[in-house]
Amino acid sequence: MTSAPDFTIRTLGKCTLESPMSQDRSQVTNFIDDDARLLFDSYANVVEERGGLEQAPKIEPAGPRRNIYFDPSKSRAAVVTCGGLCPGLNNVIRGITLGLHYLYGVKKIYGFQYGYEGFIAKYGHEAVNLTPETVDSIHETGGTILSSSRGEQPTEEIVDCLDRMDVNMLFTIGGDGTMRGALDVTKEIERRELNISVVGIPKTIDNDIGFTDVSFGFQTAYTEAVEAIRSAHTEAKGAPNGVGVVKLMGRLSGFIACYATLALPDVNFVLIPEVPFDLEGKNGFLETLRKRLERRGHAVVVVAEGAGQDLVASTGKTTVFRKTDASGNIKLKDIGVFLRETIAAWFREKGIPVNIKYIDPSYLIRSVPASPVDSVFCGQLARNAVHAAITGRTELLIGFWKNHFAHIPIQTAISMRKTVDPGSDLWRSVIETTGQPKMVHG
Amino acid sequence: MTSAPDFTIRTLGKCTLESPMSQDRSQVTNFIDDDARLLFDSYANVVEERGGLEQAPKIEPAGPRRNIYFDPSKSRAAVVTCGGLCPGLNNVIRGITLGLHYLYGVKKIYGFQYGYEGFIAKYGHEAVNLTPETVDSIHETGGTILSSSRGEQPTEEIVDCLDRMDVNMLFTIGGDGTMRGALDVTKEIERRELNISVVGIPKTIDNDIGFTDVSFGFQTAYTEAVEAIRSAHTEAKGAPNGVGVVKLMGRLSGFIACYATLALPDVNFVLIPEVPFDLEGKNGFLETLRKRLERRGHAVVVVAEGAGQDLVASTGKTTVFRKTDASGNIKLKDIGVFLRETIAAWFREKGIPVNIKYIDPSYLIRSVPASPVDSVFCGQLARNAVHAAITGRTELLIGFWKNHFAHIPIQTAISMRKTVDPGSDLWRSVIETTGQPKMVHG
Amino acid sequence: MTSAPDFTIRTLGKCTLESPMSQDRSQVTNFIDDDARLLFDSYANVVEERGGLEQAPKIEPAGPRRNIYFDPSKSRAAVVTCGGLCPGLNNVIRGITLGLHYLYGVKKIYGFQYGYEGFIAKYGHEAVNLTPETVDSIHETGGTILSSSRGEQPTEEIVDCLDRMDVNMLFTIGGDGTMRGALDVTKEIERRELNISVVGIPKTIDNDIGFTDVSFGFQTAYTEAVEAIRSAHTEAKGAPNGVGVVKLMGRLSGFIACYATLALPDVNFVLIPEVPFDLEGKNGFLETLRKRLERRGHAVVVVAEGAGQDLVASTGKTTVFRKTDASGNIKLKDIGVFLRETIAAWFREKGIPVNIKYIDPSYLIRSVPASPVDSVFCGQLARNAVHAAITGRTELLIGFWKNHFAHIPIQTAISMRKTVDPGSDLWRSVIETTGQPKMVHG
Amino acid sequence: MTSAPDFTIRTLGKCTLESPMSQDRSQVTNFIDDDARLLFDSYANVVEERGGLEQAPKIEPAGPRRNIYFDPSKSRAAVVTCGGLCPGLNNVIRGITLGLHYLYGVKKIYGFQYGYEGFIAKYGHEAVNLTPETVDSIHETGGTILSSSRGEQPTEEIVDCLDRMDVNMLFTIGGDGTMRGALDVTKEIERRELNISVVGIPKTIDNDIGFTDVSFGFQTAYTEAVEAIRSAHTEAKGAPNGVGVVKLMGRLSGFIACYATLALPDVNFVLIPEVPFDLEGKNGFLETLRKRLERRGHAVVVVAEGAGQDLVASTGKTTVFRKTDASGNIKLKDIGVFLRETIAAWFREKGIPVNIKYIDPSYLIRSVPASPVDSVFCGQLARNAVHAAITGRTELLIGFWKNHFAHIPIQTAISMRKTVDPGSDLWRSVIETTGQPKMVHG
Repeated sequence: MTSAPDFTIRTLGKCTLESPMSQDRSQVTNFIDDDARLLFDSYANVVEERGGLEQAPKIEPAGPRRNIYFDPSKSRAAVVTCGGLCPGLNNVIRGITLGLHYLYGVKKIYGFQYGYEGFIAKYGHEAVNLTPETVDSIHETGGTILSSSRGEQPTEEIVDCLDRMDVNMLFTIGGDGTMRGALDVTKEIERRELNISVVGIPKTIDNDIGFTDVSFGFQTAYTEAVEAIRSAHTEAKGAPNGVGVVKLMGRLSGFIACYATLALPDVNFVLIPEVPFDLEGKNGFLETLRKRLERRGHAVVVVAEGAGQDLVASTGKTTVFRKTDASGNIKLKDIGVFLRETIAAWFREKGIPVNIKYIDPSYLIRSVPASPVDSVFCGQLARNAVHAAITGRTELLIGFWKNHFAHIPIQTAISMRKTVDPGSDLWRSVIETTGQPKMVHG
Repeated sequence: MTSAPDFTIRTLGKCTLESPMSQDRSQVTNFIDDDARLLFDSYANVVEERGGLEQAPKIEPAGPRRNIYFDPSKSRAAVVTCGGLCPGLNNVIRGITLGLHYLYGVKKIYGFQYGYEGFIAKYGHEAVNLTPETVDSIHETGGTILSSSRGEQPTEEIVDCLDRMDVNMLFTIGGDGTMRGALDVTKEIERRELNISVVGIPKTIDNDIGFTDVSFGFQTAYTEAVEAIRSAHTEAKGAPNGVGVVKLMGRLSGFIACYATLALPDVNFVLIPEVPFDLEGKNGFLETLRKRLERRGHAVVVVAEGAGQDLVASTGKTTVFRKTDASGNIKLKDIGVFLRETIAAWFREKGIPVNIKYIDPSYLIRSVPASPVDSVFCGQLARNAVHAAITGRTELLIGFWKNHFAHIPIQTAISMRKTVDPGSDLWRSVIETTGQPKMVHG
Repeated sequence: MTSAPDFTIRTLGKCTLESPMSQDRSQVTNFIDDDARLLFDSYANVVEERGGLEQAPKIEPAGPRRNIYFDPSKSRAAVVTCGGLCPGLNNVIRGITLGLHYLYGVKKIYGFQYGYEGFIAKYGHEAVNLTPETVDSIHETGGTILSSSRGEQPTEEIVDCLDRMDVNMLFTIGGDGTMRGALDVTKEIERRELNISVVGIPKTIDNDIGFTDVSFGFQTAYTEAVEAIRSAHTEAKGAPNGVGVVKLMGRLSGFIACYATLALPDVNFVLIPEVPFDLEGKNGFLETLRKRLERRGHAVVVVAEGAGQDLVASTGKTTVFRKTDASGNIKLKDIGVFLRETIAAWFREKGIPVNIKYIDPSYLIRSVPASPVDSVFCGQLARNAVHAAITGRTELLIGFWKNHFAHIPIQTAISMRKTVDPGSDLWRSVIETTGQPKMVHG
Repeated sequence: MTSAPDFTIRTLGKCTLESPMSQDRSQVTNFIDDDARLLFDSYANVVEERGGLEQAPKIEPAGPRRNIYFDPSKSRAAVVTCGGLCPGLNNVIRGITLGLHYLYGVKKIYGFQYGYEGFIAKYGHEAVNLTPETVDSIHETGGTILSSSRGEQPTEEIVDCLDRMDVNMLFTIGGDGTMRGALDVTKEIERRELNISVVGIPKTIDNDIGFTDVSFGFQTAYTEAVEAIRSAHTEAKGAPNGVGVVKLMGRLSGFIACYATLALPDVNFVLIPEVPFDLEGKNGFLETLRKRLERRGHAVVVVAEGAGQDLVASTGKTTVFRKTDASGNIKLKDIGVFLRETIAAWFREKGIPVNIKYIDPSYLIRSVPASPVDSVFCGQLARNAVHAAITGRTELLIGFWKNHFAHIPIQTAISMRKTVDPGSDLWRSVIETTGQPKMVHG
């Protein structure tokens, strides 16, 4: 039992205005009660052990409230997308715009371009107006109409810009680094005693954000990844001792590799960051691969980009580096290329001809439009972000917990990374599907 | 607060054998504890009102147990698919077969053909053997390799057949009617004091089964339905006063209509069984449609097949019937055709030319292979069904509750139909998306 | 040997201006020689029989000429789309716009809306400006951004409008009726001695235009139709005595039915307008279907909408009508619905249970965006139409003949309808694929 | 006017048997007359210049003949697939099998595995039987059920194997190298005076085989390539100074790059082997790219794998090699990786930040199933190959010339490679689409 995470949500002040949704034509009566709390844990005994109903950690559900904090007619919102592309970015932009406009009557919505660069004068990226017309059909295309960029920008200048442009609701769509940046922004806002709410929508194609069951774009991503596996399988079977190697996204968490494999179970080896493996030795990956080829004449390997980083580092062949990119992510050594070369060299030495087909579909996966399932999900995330911001809630992001949209403090969310638990049903399903053994010495 | 549903699971006897999974190569250590229970309710205050942690309704989680009831080497399993097609049927058949074979070592698995007909001698449908080889690539195609049929068959003869063929685990994949049939079968098994476990996997493309957040095939279905909406929108815009009418599945619940609309928000009117509407009158559907055409020149209408049944019945133009089909479902009058004709007649009378494009994509939707998202889900459902049956649990189906697979007594599941709550976030999202008003008199 | 068609192309006058393409950055040197002619016939002996190289019919190839007729800087072009939707309409609109703009420098291009209605004042459809910006991404969506309509409009008023708006190049995209209308327009232009060139791009999803090997949208159409066949096959196999019936487009020519069947050879019966068949009798369709069901338990039937019209007419059950729609097309009685009902009744009478699944995917097929193959083709058609119009050629349409784009006089094109020759390799391929016998008395 | 190619077809002997197709149920009457010849040239004046109808080069049309050479009941056929994967391989295998079986009654058909290796004992690849059952649904999957391999094998041993197994018709599906191998086989067969017919179906995803307008798989390939361009465009727009680089297949001919660009005209630079370009200099590619970025902020580059080989060779940075692979193809230096690195280095030096997204989708393209358009085409190729072989024709391949299937001598076909003519309408269309200038010094 780990210590309970903190789910307390910070607000800018008391909600004294009646929500315009209470008068709308649809006669909404299902506002979320401000006192409602979701139990963090699902199992009755775990709740008991956490101290019972009273003590157990609880999460504030997302959704519309009867009273709001900001006067919509006087509000100005800002939206920004940061980091790498992810399916659904445009759906989220559209959902926020339409939600602000139609649900609450906020008419001034800025789209800041090229991520946090958009707030910084020297880059010269002009902010665009987001209206129902400009976002009308953007959900049909991949990418982000606001463009994106990696990397931090000076917090002070960002807040200067928000202040100067009278923005009182900032929606940041991005990953870890973006959320850390958003947290800094909220601190600076607090220091300056500004009335600006900051709400994040977590964007992680790897599905590795804490306290949210699934992140937007993830389901589209592994749906697309399936095609790469299909291709690798076809190629592997099409040549003597064919080995299809697919590198999939997953820097620190192997969810895409796992789910894509479960979705198209033609994979024989799944290598993820969470489960170490050896290359050499009688139980190692290479010997296991050799046996598979001997037995079946072909093999499909799916490797998450963050898998086996220790192996790449330990070899003298590849330059070892530990730099970080503009977003502060550690630059990974390319396990895919490394595997391709290592397999080729090992089998060459053994005198066994192999045909390696290496597929790296990353850009093809992340740039597609959201699938219908993700489209629905993105729309819901976006509307809930709007509901949160208009009530003056801040420093939070919209999570999805046990089938409920929920408010998660940014600090809490970024304090924990979600990974594939090697003892979980997910990983067990994967190894049942591939039939792969433990590939470690011993 | 409605009275608490009963989630007590019946078993055939005590589990005295050690699960073979406890020795497998993957060294699984994550068996589900037999005492573990999921809280049925998510909100802390609801649990409180239900009498606190002790009293509140709880659900048994699905998953592998350390001890099992049936000796796999002596077991014979049977699989049957009933009712209309649904994406994912083959994935479920495959998952059950591979789960029984590889996880537990059950080698004799019969596939009964053409639904419950397959158990009845007079139809002459031979049972087929399901093996890893025969199911290897069936997940790539829609439909069911076992074929299906509608309608009840004599319970006694079904049990005779199971008994005669020494089946001790029966997996029934089907909807309401099928589950009622399965319940009858369990009663007859009990009466005869046979040792046969009956586990259902609920198949409802309409997503209307109680106590399960999402049913297999549903996400694929609304994904496909999106294409019909896209087509209707294109057609509507392509002609003067174009009206695209799409009839989607949804006999008693409008989930597909709602989700497809949220996934491709080009829809102006969503009509579902749960929300009554009027045709005539100044607030009625027809006048509202007229105004929309006047304003925008085209319109898209999505209608669930079970919507507006009162309207069809009330007209003198169409034969009113209330028969039931072979599965006992009430035969619906065709609201789609009715709407098309009613719109045409009303506008003709008004002297307003309209171009109606009517699309009924039902078979095109339900016959596709499972999407990758549903593929993963079907595999999980199937493995959990296997885990349940091998432990002698019976009279249950595998549900999905707040992100956990769970055991739901068949009786409890069929006692309640899940419908779109007009006061829910889902319906509110839909009307925000379409902008449609309440279309009732008054 | 039928008498030779007339391929003489009419022009408005002598081309005295140098083409701007002769100076462009790409240094084009491949202008088409004005004297170049394609042989109409492929076989040497046929050319011989037609009177040798000198006498045999020849066709003018399409493409850019060194000299042009209209001064681009003073030109105004008009584009109109008529009749039913067809994949590729937007690609053609885009191609014409970009071709006029970039290849020749024509900057004023009107898009007339809702077909020929767009020229007639009383409808109030405003013409839109077509520019590189407005057409930038329209090829990604189905339908036509100009909308369409069926039916004739007064020729005089159309020419009045062209004259009034100083249009000197009219591009009409449409089928038979549209081309007949375009011919009337050219006659009226000639009568008034106006300098307006009229160039057609034949739009026939049925691929039935004479003197062109393939029409745009056709390949996309049968590509989409394949999904309906796949669905019908899955449904047919999924039920006892399942019969999948797919109605495909093809009023007078069964090309879509034939090609879709060749593309997905799971079809057992193809019924097209060109090949008569009987329902009753021992060689008739119904008895042949019965035998198939007896043997295999399921069947797939593909029927072109124009097939078996004599059969529908001969029955007393269905209202016989011979009306024409707004475009002058004979309204077909619905052979699909007729077949469904006839099959059901016949087998009911015989006491044989059948499960009929009827699929009519027409709108779903015709409203999709052009496939990549059709996209390329549409772009080429459009540029060739531009090349033709700018040289003052008129009364022609752009055909595709033996892998060359060509100029076909409208009169010649509409004088002959292309149909499936029952003695051709195409039809032989179809019956080899289905294994269907001749289904006629005798 | 180049000298006329030789289209004389060699046959094993006189056709003395009546074709079984003359008695089949479909009452085929459209046999191809043995004297029929297609004119090689389309233009009347070219035919004239080639010496008139009598002298001009002519091609034998493919198709069924009234009389055949081999007795089907005593025939044994063999099918082999060689070289890299290409969409449609399984369709061709299926079409040959079904054609032999159903059209002529040849019941013994061997599939040799792993290309020419399959004939050589030491590899131990067993031949499989091809029957209507084994090929029933193979057209639904990519790759080849026979697997493939690269490289030559000893001609003598291949003929030994054919002789030993009593094969009298060999169908080879492969590219240049494969056809050269097939030619050697026919020579050896002739030397030994064996009665074995060898018919090729040319497989070149690059569409570069001479004397055939389009090769199977090509249309599917550029259809798939479109997705990579879409992705590159989305990625390029999604980052500051984003540059999407897509490497497409095309060793010596840039057809895929050209057609994919015409199909999705979001490309700014197309680089193909046929059109040289400079990197440096004020008209060079790099400076042109810089200007494009300055103007628009993003760019998409499509490069065929064989483009710019001189540039890669001239640099000191990359190892220059001129080896050949097992099939005798010259191994290309990777222009894609080279471009990515060169662009990065050049802009880094200039102090201009760029975001390069490099996509190499080759395996994803070539491993997909044939599109419906290619499916139809493959079926036709296959049946025509069967018609050719059964009549004892040999040393030929099935081409497609001006909308007719035709017999092309292998020697003639491999004597000429089809390339993109920089003076053609195709290349002009490409540069009109991209707007790219000539990128050469001067």
